[in-house]
Amino acid sequence: MLTSTNPRTGVSAATALEPTTAEGVDAAARRAAAAAAELQHRGREFRATLLEAMAASVENSRGRLVAIADAETGLGAVRLNGEVSRSAFQFQLFAEAVREGGYLEAMIDSAAETPLGPAPDVRRMLVSIGAVAVFGSSNFPFAFSVLGGDTASAVAAGSSVVIKAHGSHLLTSQLSLEVLQEAAHAVNAPDGTFSAVFGQEAGLALVVHPAIKAASFTGSLVAAESLQRAINTRPDPIPFFGELSSINPVIVTEGAARARGTAIASGLFASFTGSAGQLCTKPGIAFIPDSASGQALVESLKELTGEARPQVLLNDRIRSSFDSISGRLVEAGAVEIASGSGLPPHDQDAPDENPFQGFTVAPALLETAAASLTEELAEECFGPLIVIARYSTLDEVREAFGRIPRSLTATLHAEDDDEAIIAQLMPALEASAGRIVFNSYPTGVRVTWAQHHGGPWPSTNSQHTSVGVTAVRRFLRPLAWQNAPQSALPEELRDHYSAIPRRIDGALVLPQPVVQQVGG
Amino acid sequence: MLTSTNPRTGVSAATALEPTTAEGVDAAARRAAAAAAELQHRGREFRATLLEAMAASVENSRGRLVAIADAETGLGAVRLNGEVSRSAFQFQLFAEAVREGGYLEAMIDSAAETPLGPAPDVRRMLVSIGAVAVFGSSNFPFAFSVLGGDTASAVAAGSSVVIKAHGSHLLTSQLSLEVLQEAAHAVNAPDGTFSAVFGQEAGLALVVHPAIKAASFTGSLVAAESLQRAINTRPDPIPFFGELSSINPVIVTEGAARARGTAIASGLFASFTGSAGQLCTKPGIAFIPDSASGQALVESLKELTGEARPQVLLNDRIRSSFDSISGRLVEAGAVEIASGSGLPPHDQDAPDENPFQGFTVAPALLETAAASLTEELAEECFGPLIVIARYSTLDEVREAFGRIPRSLTATLHAEDDDEAIIAQLMPALEASAGRIVFNSYPTGVRVTWAQHHGGPWPSTNSQHTSVGVTAVRRFLRPLAWQNAPQSALPEELRDHYSAIPRRIDGALVLPQPVVQQVGG
Repeated sequence: MLTSTNPRTGVSAATALEPTTAEGVDAAARRAAAAAAELQHRGREFRATLLEAMAASVENSRGRLVAIADAETGLGAVRLNGEVSRSAFQFQLFAEAVREGGYLEAMIDSAAETPLGPAPDVRRMLVSIGAVAVFGSSNFPFAFSVLGGDTASAVAAGSSVVIKAHGSHLLTSQLSLEVLQEAAHAVNAPDGTFSAVFGQEAGLALVVHPAIKAASFTGSLVAAESLQRAINTRPDPIPFFGELSSINPVIVTEGAARARGTAIASGLFASFTGSAGQLCTKPGIAFIPDSASGQALVESLKELTGEARPQVLLNDRIRSSFDSISGRLVEAGAVEIASGSGLPPHDQDAPDENPFQGFTVAPALLETAAASLTEELAEECFGPLIVIARYSTLDEVREAFGRIPRSLTATLHAEDDDEAIIAQLMPALEASAGRIVFNSYPTGVRVTWAQHHGGPWPSTNSQHTSVGVTAVRRFLRPLAWQNAPQSALPEELRDHYSAIPRRIDGALVLPQPVVQQVGG
Repeated sequence: MLTSTNPRTGVSAATALEPTTAEGVDAAARRAAAAAAELQHRGREFRATLLEAMAASVENSRGRLVAIADAETGLGAVRLNGEVSRSAFQFQLFAEAVREGGYLEAMIDSAAETPLGPAPDVRRMLVSIGAVAVFGSSNFPFAFSVLGGDTASAVAAGSSVVIKAHGSHLLTSQLSLEVLQEAAHAVNAPDGTFSAVFGQEAGLALVVHPAIKAASFTGSLVAAESLQRAINTRPDPIPFFGELSSINPVIVTEGAARARGTAIASGLFASFTGSAGQLCTKPGIAFIPDSASGQALVESLKELTGEARPQVLLNDRIRSSFDSISGRLVEAGAVEIASGSGLPPHDQDAPDENPFQGFTVAPALLETAAASLTEELAEECFGPLIVIARYSTLDEVREAFGRIPRSLTATLHAEDDDEAIIAQLMPALEASAGRIVFNSYPTGVRVTWAQHHGGPWPSTNSQHTSVGVTAVRRFLRPLAWQNAPQSALPEELRDHYSAIPRRIDGALVLPQPVVQQVGG
């Protein structure tokens, strides 16, 4: 029997859920494989309709979803309502992308005489890779879990999904699965389009199941390594898309610190403490000039941090990691210059008023010198903590970028007349991250076409994104047809189909408007 | 000291080449990393010019290249001249693709009020992944080696290339490298754009070098596994694109056997014996109806095979594999029904006339029943050998497809009125291969936009192609810029750039013609 824990109190309660057995995993994977074949066959319009039904179903259950997730994550109704909106929006956005059809990368090369001799007709597009295993993350109970972007992009690709529910929001996962199954039922999707498995053993069994053709994951490096090791034992390798670890450096130029140091301090504070700092894109290091303006910025941050309320983390593992990693950072030479622990002392006679009950920690501000920044000082600490790295020269910053791990994001606060500085820093920023943010903050990932939520190792292990429309590419494979009769081709590759962008004989052709027949 | 062997005679000769030392690998990889940064910086037009120079340089050295490769591979001047043409054509095609720019997947999402609140400007395109290790294959000394598609697509991506020369054409590889370096010199490309390493140890050192960011490989499963194991020991995973093993099944319907059985026999014979059967796309199994028409087709094949001349294989390893695998196929139950060994007996007194000197084998035709086809009978046998699988019902074929490994290609010979049969077979064909060929033969891979030379495991280990323009995607990673000033963006993402296809606010926009300013 599995339990659900309230992180605000640390109290666990029994649930009706059981760890999925090996037989249960096998059945889910087999049904998913059959569903994937059927989903591919039903075509794009069906999948767009399914995605719209998923969006509607999420909205229909908003209140219940938020309530159950709040009890399991402590993230609060405002943040969780936002996340439900994001989940619904994602399903809708992928529905639009499926209808638009550009993601198919449809190409037609007509038979031709070429410099290499006569050449056959070759047509290509992307098709579903098959059934996908999705591992929900702890920190986004909706947008990176059962109802998340991996599920959305897999369905868009034509894949079925078997979700490994995250242990720290099991009831939310179960309700989310029911929400998906309602949508599937509403549009008569194949059985096995959505299912879920519970428990770590089930997750490991899932990624080695022959019917599973890809896996996606958002979480820790350690958990990802365990899954990758399991996948490496398969006779047939499958792609494993992991979004893993990110320190997300921020650089503030002297000009920016002088012009808007207080605003940057507020923005940074909101960014590193939002959702209790439990975001993949949380800024973990900020390079601040070792100058009067820089000092003023740091003083503002100290003040904000010192006055901050304690924050509830998602589970006991994250809480204890926060304690041990913040300890290691201090051992490695960082100095704690502010902490949101300046609270009334704990009253032994009134334990309910203990502000540190449950999985609660105090936001923390640490400081070091950029010139002495090491890989140890750049260890990701999930939770409300940031390390300020004071610098005297840009070279110190660039050299430090060479020593710290690479990230999902890198952020630069600079003024209009900092052009030369920007030019100097760009190569380091481009090499170190998947998204470069100017004059704002890395948290808050826009769900859109051009988004890239990925980056060099260890931020991800692939050349793909897990947020935004191009996330669909992870679950697709190319298929080519040579000299095929029209009837054997998918409709998107037939001669007279023109509703999607296609590359014909090397030239990209936009969809043609449908001309209405007049008369009849 | 390394040796070069003439496969026609089996005689080895010393070369001036040495196995590359660990220091030599390190130096090449470091120089390649520096070159990759510079190539990315120089932009698309430079890379297109470099690719054109590579095409020209190959043409300039055609005679020397063909002569040296013929001595090392025994493939003959006609085939090798065709391959040189293909190499040059590939460089030219990628130059065009780089100029066209669609492969960048440029996207711009303007800042906007969205259903999820105010959203920043986000722009994305693909950039080079960095320095690439390319492993040349034995069977294409040009088109899948130093001068091959991996080199072409890596340069198109903006990557530098360190090539592991294939041991069975070392002198060809060395000359090919000089041809590339001449081109690099002609356009003043950075040092380290092209280099090569020699020897297996050097290859293993290359894929674990921190400066190498991706590796591509065409060759055997066993060699790929050894490289993958080495890559798995890296702290940072890198993508490894392997094109590996393929049985390439062919199905001939009763209608097709009846209508054009003799022509199909000729075509199949040419396809399984061309280049001595040493092609990744060689048909290894042909499903032929167990009928009078099918029998006539098989009789034609027997006749052609029985009259065939012995063929020279590339090296002793391939020759001995051919012998042992053909032996295993017979042990597994296939019957040899024809062999091109009906030659005058070997004259002990005139060893020069021995038709089986060097690495020579006889083409072979084996037969079995589709209903009893096992995975063992579908073992890939590199060289001029095909297994005929006789079938009585389409279900036998479909079930056999479920038992044999999946492939780069699957081929169907069917008549116009076979529509119902085609529809029945399509799901099995689509699931089993990366390219479905109708009424022709899988060998002869058109180098074009829509080509897909890849497929489900074990034919490849990735969702990518190694032939055709989209091969460039292997060496690219997405990068996004948020709220970036125009000057910090690559020109392709700036507001007023319009020379390439871009997706703007979700809508694909074609390049705009340049309007000439009148007057002045």
